[in-house]
Amino acid sequence: MANAVLACGASPIMADDSDEVEEITSLSTSLVINIGTLNKRSVQSMLLAGKRANALSHPVVLDPVGIGASRLRTQTALHLLEQIHFDVIRGNSSEIKTLAGQNASVQGVDADIADSIHQNNLDQYIALAQSLSLRYNAVMAITGAIDIVADNEKAFVIYNGHPLMSKITGTGCMLSGLLGGFVGANPKDVLLAAAAAVSLMGLCGQLAHEKMLQFDGGTSLFRTFLIDAISNMTTEILKRGVQIEVR
Amino acid sequence: MANAVLACGASPIMADDSDEVEEITSLSTSLVINIGTLNKRSVQSMLLAGKRANALSHPVVLDPVGIGASRLRTQTALHLLEQIHFDVIRGNSSEIKTLAGQNASVQGVDADIADSIHQNNLDQYIALAQSLSLRYNAVMAITGAIDIVADNEKAFVIYNGHPLMSKITGTGCMLSGLLGGFVGANPKDVLLAAAAAVSLMGLCGQLAHEKMLQFDGGTSLFRTFLIDAISNMTTEILKRGVQIEVR
Amino acid sequence: MANAVLACGASPIMADDSDEVEEITSLSTSLVINIGTLNKRSVQSMLLAGKRANALSHPVVLDPVGIGASRLRTQTALHLLEQIHFDVIRGNSSEIKTLAGQNASVQGVDADIADSIHQNNLDQYIALAQSLSLRYNAVMAITGAIDIVADNEKAFVIYNGHPLMSKITGTGCMLSGLLGGFVGANPKDVLLAAAAAVSLMGLCGQLAHEKMLQFDGGTSLFRTFLIDAISNMTTEILKRGVQIEVR
Repeated sequence: MANAVLACGASPIMADDSDEVEEITSLSTSLVINIGTLNKRSVQSMLLAGKRANALSHPVVLDPVGIGASRLRTQTALHLLEQIHFDVIRGNSSEIKTLAGQNASVQGVDADIADSIHQNNLDQYIALAQSLSLRYNAVMAITGAIDIVADNEKAFVIYNGHPLMSKITGTGCMLSGLLGGFVGANPKDVLLAAAAAVSLMGLCGQLAHEKMLQFDGGTSLFRTFLIDAISNMTTEILKRGVQIEVR
Repeated sequence: MANAVLACGASPIMADDSDEVEEITSLSTSLVINIGTLNKRSVQSMLLAGKRANALSHPVVLDPVGIGASRLRTQTALHLLEQIHFDVIRGNSSEIKTLAGQNASVQGVDADIADSIHQNNLDQYIALAQSLSLRYNAVMAITGAIDIVADNEKAFVIYNGHPLMSKITGTGCMLSGLLGGFVGANPKDVLLAAAAAVSLMGLCGQLAHEKMLQFDGGTSLFRTFLIDAISNMTTEILKRGVQIEVR
Repeated sequence: MANAVLACGASPIMADDSDEVEEITSLSTSLVINIGTLNKRSVQSMLLAGKRANALSHPVVLDPVGIGASRLRTQTALHLLEQIHFDVIRGNSSEIKTLAGQNASVQGVDADIADSIHQNNLDQYIALAQSLSLRYNAVMAITGAIDIVADNEKAFVIYNGHPLMSKITGTGCMLSGLLGGFVGANPKDVLLAAAAAVSLMGLCGQLAHEKMLQFDGGTSLFRTFLIDAISNMTTEILKRGVQIEVR
């Protein structure tokens, strides 16, 4: 995740001790809270960091990894959402359905196939994103085969991406890191910044897959080329490759 | 480790907080307990997860990383073995000798050269594996230059593998992860599932080494190609490459 | 970091529980204390490990990651320096300035551009290194575009390295790990061992960059080839590539 953030041009620092997270947050331009390696000790640190970022008007991103897989995760995510204002909330379809109180098919940290986004249920997922955007006053990013980035008024539907992205660790977490970098650099238009980060990540997945095939590689080389593509991204490549529509 | 598990087709989730490990274990089809990054906080979580997995009859794998390097590791491993039934126990020769109460030459987390398995002491190591299998009612996997996978009645001797596997981090841990995936998918024949995982891992080491040489690479490219080989494995490649004998 | 240490031929073990760090230190030939993922629990372990290493006359390396970014980091680093004798202290220019009580431009864990070492301020940084060497009776390694390795009497100025090294995670930490390996293997001449490790790391950055270009890669392939270069290093390659001067 830190390598992806470095690759996009941002400068990550990871801290989780309650004695330093407020100072570290003050040094930073944005904050990403990721509950992937959740433990009770770090929840207090998340609250302190989030409140400080809110006080400083730094954009804050939430990645509710595995919400629904345990009560600890669900309660922690909901508690964070009560105590902290998030500017962007990113999850897969199972996580976002759980957040909305819907019955998701949680299978650990991966989205269940039963919850996958396709043309037939796209409108429902956009409506879900927009109702959550209203509830939390946040840009919602639901990622999967099709990605949705929406606030209460506007939705971007993004067709970039590659199925192999779910066969390596950390693509969701990397994207949340990129979101932190992008909204930190463009806090005036969080929706657009978030849509740019999500489409960039998806496009990098496509480019990584093409290059992996050239070298007869597998999932690990794909992971290498994914971060390579982030580090080598240009406006030109991005403009040419993005497949996005506005709803 | 998680990337290797994803590469073999399984879906890993890593959790270590005592408040969620029982629920996470319930969602999963198998459990791997690895004491590599041991701390007192996580031992309680290991016990809770292991007991839940036993109650649900999910297969459980133990990787007693670095047992013998400290009393904490030795006592923790022995305590886990008293409290939890493990279906598979995997370690290098130094770790397994320590487990058996024999005098191993422990040098941290790597097997000592004095404990390496070769043709001259192979029978002794098979006897060791089978006596431990009887004691713990578990399939034993001793990995090194030659690998042994045995229960009390039958032993597989596996000649796959490559010395570079000891020059990168996590090959033992990855294999324990694969063992979790394989015995989770085939709980009816744990011995065979374990032998398949061990020989697959060794074969992937050989394939990774060949490909590394093509690119004039070093240990990091070897590590990339090792996971690539896991993700690209087919029945055909496995059957052609496995070097295994039954004792 | 562990992969870099393995690549140089050493055998790393990472432990942070207070119940085992003294035993693990006793098994090892050197100790590296890195405050990158600092938390209150591990500080006690650092003190125990450091004191044991001192008692056994094992060389000890300090990497004060992000000192200055929070009071916790600054106070911890200073407390460790009071309680433990370090043989080598390695940091970037911002970290070392903070250590000296100078006003550094701390931007998280990366050196600030305002603190970068160039020909115009090189003499000042050498003087800084030598005064800290006297204060702490340690070899100082300040790494950046130009690296300085100095004790109170002699300074090596090293011109190896590549800017991409700051665009991936862990190059500073990897180097601290290599320093542990090198001074563990050559405790009689810590200054020379440290200079060798620093120049080797920089040279590997250059070699990795060349190879990355061959494959049209980005930062992740660069990271792979950096560790590859460490694992493939020979005396011949090192002698030919090192750009070092003695002051």
